[in-house]
Amino acid sequence: MIYLTRRERFNAAHKLYNDEWSEKKNLEVFGKCSNPNWHGHNYVIYVTVKGEVNPQTGWVIDLKDLSHLLKEEVIEKLDHKNINLDVNFMKSKKASTEVLCIEIWNILFEKIKALGATLHCIKLIETENNYVEYYG
Amino acid sequence: MIYLTRRERFNAAHKLYNDEWSEKKNLEVFGKCSNPNWHGHNYVIYVTVKGEVNPQTGWVIDLKDLSHLLKEEVIEKLDHKNINLDVNFMKSKKASTEVLCIEIWNILFEKIKALGATLHCIKLIETENNYVEYYG
Amino acid sequence: MIYLTRRERFNAAHKLYNDEWSEKKNLEVFGKCSNPNWHGHNYVIYVTVKGEVNPQTGWVIDLKDLSHLLKEEVIEKLDHKNINLDVNFMKSKKASTEVLCIEIWNILFEKIKALGATLHCIKLIETENNYVEYYG
Amino acid sequence: MIYLTRRERFNAAHKLYNDEWSEKKNLEVFGKCSNPNWHGHNYVIYVTVKGEVNPQTGWVIDLKDLSHLLKEEVIEKLDHKNINLDVNFMKSKKASTEVLCIEIWNILFEKIKALGATLHCIKLIETENNYVEYYG
Amino acid sequence: MIYLTRRERFNAAHKLYNDEWSEKKNLEVFGKCSNPNWHGHNYVIYVTVKGEVNPQTGWVIDLKDLSHLLKEEVIEKLDHKNINLDVNFMKSKKASTEVLCIEIWNILFEKIKALGATLHCIKLIETENNYVEYYG
Amino acid sequence: MIYLTRRERFNAAHKLYNDEWSEKKNLEVFGKCSNPNWHGHNYVIYVTVKGEVNPQTGWVIDLKDLSHLLKEEVIEKLDHKNINLDVNFMKSKKASTEVLCIEIWNILFEKIKALGATLHCIKLIETENNYVEYYG
Repeated sequence: MIYLTRRERFNAAHKLYNDEWSEKKNLEVFGKCSNPNWHGHNYVIYVTVKGEVNPQTGWVIDLKDLSHLLKEEVIEKLDHKNINLDVNFMKSKKASTEVLCIEIWNILFEKIKALGATLHCIKLIETENNYVEYYG
Repeated sequence: MIYLTRRERFNAAHKLYNDEWSEKKNLEVFGKCSNPNWHGHNYVIYVTVKGEVNPQTGWVIDLKDLSHLLKEEVIEKLDHKNINLDVNFMKSKKASTEVLCIEIWNILFEKIKALGATLHCIKLIETENNYVEYYG
Repeated sequence: MIYLTRRERFNAAHKLYNDEWSEKKNLEVFGKCSNPNWHGHNYVIYVTVKGEVNPQTGWVIDLKDLSHLLKEEVIEKLDHKNINLDVNFMKSKKASTEVLCIEIWNILFEKIKALGATLHCIKLIETENNYVEYYG
Repeated sequence: MIYLTRRERFNAAHKLYNDEWSEKKNLEVFGKCSNPNWHGHNYVIYVTVKGEVNPQTGWVIDLKDLSHLLKEEVIEKLDHKNINLDVNFMKSKKASTEVLCIEIWNILFEKIKALGATLHCIKLIETENNYVEYYG
Repeated sequence: MIYLTRRERFNAAHKLYNDEWSEKKNLEVFGKCSNPNWHGHNYVIYVTVKGEVNPQTGWVIDLKDLSHLLKEEVIEKLDHKNINLDVNFMKSKKASTEVLCIEIWNILFEKIKALGATLHCIKLIETENNYVEYYG
Repeated sequence: MIYLTRRERFNAAHKLYNDEWSEKKNLEVFGKCSNPNWHGHNYVIYVTVKGEVNPQTGWVIDLKDLSHLLKEEVIEKLDHKNINLDVNFMKSKKASTEVLCIEIWNILFEKIKALGATLHCIKLIETENNYVEYYG
């Protein structure tokens, strides 16, 4: 069993906001992250899959296939978008790094199985000072 | 003469947009950077000043003063903001990295003189793949 | 269960030294790391906590609370200090990265529980070429 | 139990190639990675060992011993070499990052035990966008 | 006048070699960089252009055009290639970072003028410890 | 004319202190940087030289010679040392990054001329947030 990781990037706007709360309470809880006109990040995502080495190729899976999958299913849907407004799979969800990371796992898990490997971890970096990891 | 550089960071939303153009032309010229609902970046700014070394301190200027100035005049106005909507000195200007870099120069030049040094360069990094520099 | 990581930094002096050994033996074992007049590092610390996502916020815990805790309990006690001489919780201990990492774990474990999460890992980077990790 | 990691680097040429396949099939499967005249990378390797802290030193093991071992057994054999042609332990094997990572594990496992620690993980970075990890 | 920089990357094999010298002299002068079976690097290139800000766009030039030019004229010719054997514009030249940097300048200078800006600097990074810069 | 840069690193302790001032005034001016028991940094130095490309080698100068010079004249004198106490060329000088950068220039200028190139710039990084540059 060996672990293979691919890095991708996307730039997006978001805000942290709970629709059931007043604007005042949102500001109290989320601080400047609740700025009504949004702010944004250069998100970096590391997707780690695990599997056996294929003796014909020396690979777990073809990195080009993994990169293509990530671009089609994740990056195109998030890059240069507003996570709260433009992204179907985040509709009516909190636009936090934690929730986004879990939703990306849910999108990718079966599709990576179809490539012949098992999704092991999604690491999603929001700034140089914070990131989240999800292992299912 | 020696050059001293301070790094600061801010996270902001923006879009590239020309109000005199149709949405179609904006999309043609600016591509996904014109996404109506914004996108965002982790901007990194390097401010370089030059001056003589003060023999009493070994410093050009006090880095704490420079950092305080940058936080008050630049970071607080841009961090967790929408550059097109929330930032007074960018009102009615294009929210490009080039224009933002020049406007930051204009804000800082005299204020850095008041600290006893000369502003030499503003470097503004938008993504790991592109940045601009302005020398006045 | 999701994992959330916060990065902080501190700059400190230290030396590797065993008081029960002669200066000659210290030099033999620790090499230049035992320089009597100290040397120093830009330490980087990554603190990883785990927990459930709070449906009200989309967070595991408030990153501002975690950052505040780290600054008060760890960074203020270590930043611009001498680890061997100035830091109470390192008194009479070896000032190695390993021991420092374990002591930081001991300081933080209960306090992170009080924030509503579980401490998972302390990663302490001494130079770009070496770091340690402790999982309790 | 604490984990200690050492980083080393080597620059090498390689190609991905299956000798049992035609050049056309190699190109189909491996794409530009099968370029007959080779290409190359600045590989970065992180070797993580685990063990108890030695109360005499505050160390798991002496990092200088670990670095010396890595240089002698891994870096000197790979740095400024062609992985397919010049490296004995890769002869007749696929020159993929996965296979190289596993072979480095096999070389180091017993030798790290002789230093008084247990090899935990080899992480081998090929580009800023992909890496593999092996835990035995 | 403002300066705009674009980063691109390519992975290539090369060796340092003077055909007029014996293999022994090549080894004496170039050391392990003359390994007959090649070695390689993850090269990083920063291309800096200068110009006036276009008031219609806020740009010096369209970064997409610059990136497209770099990919077509530089990256496709060097990525996953052998610089000594596979690259037309390096034929019969020394495959050093210095010479490669100057040749890339020569390829790009007029083409960047056609985009409406002036080439200012090519920075070519070979390893984390060395790079060259050329200003024409 | 082309510019060649070499990176080296050293870990050192220092404090900012003016012997002619009281401890109270030192604390007022230098803040926590004047901690009596020192603090320290992982310093990174970039040395840039300029010259013509040698047609026999494709080099400005041999990077191994430059690295050897830097290690002998700069790194060995600073690495794992106390800049205020252990470094001859800093005796009775302020241990600021600015002064250290200028002194390193003074040490290297003639010695780099002897290698056949001209020293262009010393860049000395103290933390990820500040650095100085000196051009003579």
